[in-house]
Amino acid sequence: MKAARLYKFNEPLQIEEVAPREVKGGEVLVKVTGAYVCASDLDIISGHIPEVKLPLTLGHNNAGYVEQVGQDVPDFKRGDAVAVFGGWGCGSCRFCRQGEEQLCSLTRWVGFGVDGGYAEYLHVPSYRHLIKLNKLEPVDAAPLLDAGLTPYRAVKLTLPHLYPGSVAVIIGVGHIGYFAVQIMRAISPGAKIIAVDVVDERLKLASQLGADWVIDGRGKAADEIKRITGGEGVQAVIDTVGSAATLPLAATAVGRKAIIMVLGLAGGTLPYSFLALPFECVLTNSVWGSYNELEEVLALAAMGKIKMHVQRFPLKDINEVFSRLRKGQIEGQAVITP
Amino acid sequence: MKAARLYKFNEPLQIEEVAPREVKGGEVLVKVTGAYVCASDLDIISGHIPEVKLPLTLGHNNAGYVEQVGQDVPDFKRGDAVAVFGGWGCGSCRFCRQGEEQLCSLTRWVGFGVDGGYAEYLHVPSYRHLIKLNKLEPVDAAPLLDAGLTPYRAVKLTLPHLYPGSVAVIIGVGHIGYFAVQIMRAISPGAKIIAVDVVDERLKLASQLGADWVIDGRGKAADEIKRITGGEGVQAVIDTVGSAATLPLAATAVGRKAIIMVLGLAGGTLPYSFLALPFECVLTNSVWGSYNELEEVLALAAMGKIKMHVQRFPLKDINEVFSRLRKGQIEGQAVITP
Amino acid sequence: MKAARLYKFNEPLQIEEVAPREVKGGEVLVKVTGAYVCASDLDIISGHIPEVKLPLTLGHNNAGYVEQVGQDVPDFKRGDAVAVFGGWGCGSCRFCRQGEEQLCSLTRWVGFGVDGGYAEYLHVPSYRHLIKLNKLEPVDAAPLLDAGLTPYRAVKLTLPHLYPGSVAVIIGVGHIGYFAVQIMRAISPGAKIIAVDVVDERLKLASQLGADWVIDGRGKAADEIKRITGGEGVQAVIDTVGSAATLPLAATAVGRKAIIMVLGLAGGTLPYSFLALPFECVLTNSVWGSYNELEEVLALAAMGKIKMHVQRFPLKDINEVFSRLRKGQIEGQAVITP
Amino acid sequence: MKAARLYKFNEPLQIEEVAPREVKGGEVLVKVTGAYVCASDLDIISGHIPEVKLPLTLGHNNAGYVEQVGQDVPDFKRGDAVAVFGGWGCGSCRFCRQGEEQLCSLTRWVGFGVDGGYAEYLHVPSYRHLIKLNKLEPVDAAPLLDAGLTPYRAVKLTLPHLYPGSVAVIIGVGHIGYFAVQIMRAISPGAKIIAVDVVDERLKLASQLGADWVIDGRGKAADEIKRITGGEGVQAVIDTVGSAATLPLAATAVGRKAIIMVLGLAGGTLPYSFLALPFECVLTNSVWGSYNELEEVLALAAMGKIKMHVQRFPLKDINEVFSRLRKGQIEGQAVITP
Repeated sequence: MKAARLYKFNEPLQIEEVAPREVKGGEVLVKVTGAYVCASDLDIISGHIPEVKLPLTLGHNNAGYVEQVGQDVPDFKRGDAVAVFGGWGCGSCRFCRQGEEQLCSLTRWVGFGVDGGYAEYLHVPSYRHLIKLNKLEPVDAAPLLDAGLTPYRAVKLTLPHLYPGSVAVIIGVGHIGYFAVQIMRAISPGAKIIAVDVVDERLKLASQLGADWVIDGRGKAADEIKRITGGEGVQAVIDTVGSAATLPLAATAVGRKAIIMVLGLAGGTLPYSFLALPFECVLTNSVWGSYNELEEVLALAAMGKIKMHVQRFPLKDINEVFSRLRKGQIEGQAVITP
Repeated sequence: MKAARLYKFNEPLQIEEVAPREVKGGEVLVKVTGAYVCASDLDIISGHIPEVKLPLTLGHNNAGYVEQVGQDVPDFKRGDAVAVFGGWGCGSCRFCRQGEEQLCSLTRWVGFGVDGGYAEYLHVPSYRHLIKLNKLEPVDAAPLLDAGLTPYRAVKLTLPHLYPGSVAVIIGVGHIGYFAVQIMRAISPGAKIIAVDVVDERLKLASQLGADWVIDGRGKAADEIKRITGGEGVQAVIDTVGSAATLPLAATAVGRKAIIMVLGLAGGTLPYSFLALPFECVLTNSVWGSYNELEEVLALAAMGKIKMHVQRFPLKDINEVFSRLRKGQIEGQAVITP
Repeated sequence: MKAARLYKFNEPLQIEEVAPREVKGGEVLVKVTGAYVCASDLDIISGHIPEVKLPLTLGHNNAGYVEQVGQDVPDFKRGDAVAVFGGWGCGSCRFCRQGEEQLCSLTRWVGFGVDGGYAEYLHVPSYRHLIKLNKLEPVDAAPLLDAGLTPYRAVKLTLPHLYPGSVAVIIGVGHIGYFAVQIMRAISPGAKIIAVDVVDERLKLASQLGADWVIDGRGKAADEIKRITGGEGVQAVIDTVGSAATLPLAATAVGRKAIIMVLGLAGGTLPYSFLALPFECVLTNSVWGSYNELEEVLALAAMGKIKMHVQRFPLKDINEVFSRLRKGQIEGQAVITP
Repeated sequence: MKAARLYKFNEPLQIEEVAPREVKGGEVLVKVTGAYVCASDLDIISGHIPEVKLPLTLGHNNAGYVEQVGQDVPDFKRGDAVAVFGGWGCGSCRFCRQGEEQLCSLTRWVGFGVDGGYAEYLHVPSYRHLIKLNKLEPVDAAPLLDAGLTPYRAVKLTLPHLYPGSVAVIIGVGHIGYFAVQIMRAISPGAKIIAVDVVDERLKLASQLGADWVIDGRGKAADEIKRITGGEGVQAVIDTVGSAATLPLAATAVGRKAIIMVLGLAGGTLPYSFLALPFECVLTNSVWGSYNELEEVLALAAMGKIKMHVQRFPLKDINEVFSRLRKGQIEGQAVITP
């Protein structure tokens, strides 16, 4: 089978012929028909993610059809449409046992620590990592596996702070923010949404996705947020950027007992101390999501509450896709269709 | 001023001239322009609510305009549109102090223990019981003060059991169910809704209000619910009826770790024991709602997420309205406009 | 190896020679040195638990030493002291995935659906069901696997209702209540404890285990509880009996927003309706506990916060132990030491 | 009556004769017999707390006996022993209405914005700010009103992160840490406690108060914490210092999904970003506590679970007490007994 492999950091992936691994026990071979190209691939390629060992087939957002099952696999058969949950934890630690495999310290994440899905076939070590797709096509499910799941968990963790009449801010309407706005709209108990970005068309997009207000981050965003909230500040901020510009905005946007959820790694820091934020604010992050949460995201999409805007690319164009991703030239979600 | 007063149980209210009480300190006199006629008025009239002392001006869902304020009242002035929160607790007990005045054992509920709003003016003992209305007319806010607030709190208490892909059942699409369906639609994190009733036009109404499925309770409702949920059962039931027919339906509809929220008092009982319900189900009720929750309900309505269907009646028709209410001949919400 | 097997309901177990199963993959063979004899064994023997298929080796509370490990077992080696978590779920359903295997509808509970530990060796299908014991002897850990874990989860679920100054009632100081009193003492945030029983020496025992008050259930228990709580009622009841005498006591003991946790199956029912309990009380049960919760129970015991009172019996006396259990002649916890 | 008043920042208080205010309506005059001297008094005196207007009678931790009640005061009478809850909120905002008056933006805190209790009598504007003392002497209750209540709320907010076998760190065993260790011992569900300080006798004291381990912050505290927790880190840190030395220690001490609760204002900052702490850690603070929480603290003390070590001083020595407080020469809690 063909696979796109990284041999050396900062070099293009090489598309080469690889023999698929044997399938036995509870293992499953999936024919990949959709592999979402995630911005964190760029961090792998640049060598910024330390545990990565080369050569490696990238691709951590994979969906497709069951090709072959091991002798101990129940419930799945050849031809089933499936998405692959990528947080393959140890199964034995406290976090795995409470269904938070993505927090396991030994997680072998597919496409990070184990060969991923930029390939014709993906070897999955247990059928338990698969979710059957009922209404969604694999190619549409692929972007949800990270870009949908990550903001879903983040939004869910902000819900205890929200109520009808409260306001939430989503900073950044890029890969994550695109879904964050929709998910906040779908699952919050009546909170209103402010979206902040510095690109005109993204602000326009945010309105279409359901934001109640859009604010240009190049202007006096903090003032506008205070005005909208009558001076009190908002009850939740999801900062999908995390830069030296956005984190101070988050800090000035919130009111008492609010939450700031940092998802972005753009190099900013928020200097925390007792008096740094209004009383009893919470500063935290969230990491990917659990298997059950992925099922919930897929359920939202199947109900039509999350829309995708997929652009398909053949496997051979993978390096070109990375190049366009670096330049911000991908509209919607880029999905490799090997 | 004119007021509709009950002098003897099971007799019509008498409309008579009453002198309004003096307004001093933090007190406020409200000119009532909307007083929602609630089914629990019938229970007062029939003598089924024990603490009631006659004569009494009924009416516990009141909104209108500030007419006069005491010398210590800040923030409110003549002409302000206001709704009156009706759970006037002691202010000192553990429940009052955590904002659950409606659970206070000493609650003097307006229209139950204190003269209510079927009158031209309502004397409110503290401005703290008032909520300013920004977008809603008092006549539209009136039905929300009980028929909206009660299911709001009930739905809110079921939310920890719900997630995208889960299913909730609302039994009864009458005065409470009308709002319960809309509120579940507005604030649940993506749960689907089954509405059950035994009246064709209510089932049709439930669909219009946002139910995903409607089920005729005269048929095999339990079977249909099991079919919809693939045998597992639902995660929440709100039984707005509480009859010998609906409570067993609730018990068979739920799955593991679900919640049954009983709001209706139609005389049924559910015999609870360790094996009566699927494992770790919760059986509970909820009572009215708090001031903050009322603000949340009004915010939902102001956002257009709860629709009312108000029919207006003059004060002199109050006994006629009760008569029609008894016969189920009120469509939408009957509001007295003194 | 020797094993005590049930061939026919209502007949004694037969102790016979059985070949241990082969150990491969992730499987482990445990040399049983402590198997707690649980009252639910009597329900299996009498045929009251429907899914049971005979013949069956009973025993669902097992601890001992690793004897042999399959080739894929990490972290465990021959001689390790271990306890066996008994809720062997499917691993794939929503409940298993959030760490509540004991709620899985396909659970094959050891000693119920699969051969248990009244035998010299126990075949465990995955090392993931084992917990390493650090400070506790297996024979002391055995009673905690059900009689400790079940009240632990139950008490934990009552904690949101409790606070310093609140009061909890534990009805029944038998096999479960013995641990419930100690656990409530250890993990509640300062709640006071009332223990109710109808046997003098159990009331005495409850005092020794940490109850603040003991009440004789043969007297006016409800009146005493009201007196202790100044008329308000308690915030939590754990009814380990569930009889026609105890459930009404639970219903009269509770105050507003309290919780009644039913653990016993002694045939009583509590007829629930909107007015059956004080406002916003919760009526529920809890089932066994999760693996993580079992680790928590073992941690409490290792810290000396739960004391056991173990009586040891050889495997050959198993039928005699059942006989004494039926007559209430076991003091403390009976553990088979095969 | 005599009162100790601040006329100019950084100068001694002047003890002078003041006429007590008239008592009417719901007001109460309390004869102060215990006023705890809090370190934040020093911040008022030095002018570091901006809203303070002079002259002002200091003292925000007051207890004593009811001297006189207004005509509308129920439930209280002359001679009742009472503690005064000091967070006098507006009563109308969302925070006040959910029982968090200490978060109200308009709070007039006694001794900060209103004349306090370093005086023979304290005028309390509503009987609702009083708590009756049953078992505690006012002089013993006084230190709990801030130095007990603040860590109580802080510890309570960490409880969702704790379980039997988990570990919590309390940094600083000074005025707040003294109570934090005891309260963590009393209300946590079996967490073990590490206390960190840089003064030998405080470490000794922490052991006596119930810490499982004490660590000298002058040594390799982070290494020791990692060793104790097997490398994982702790589930909660309460930093009562907040210095440039303690906040980095907090950051290295925690494990995944832990909480860092900052109570101290010693000038340090923790630069937060996505990667600053282990995954899904929470960084927050907590502010004083609510009336209900104060009742809970007093209940713990009445149960003997919080011990005080009170040193009494007459009103005339107030400036001498401040002087000793500045030098760290107060052992236990200094209470003025006017």
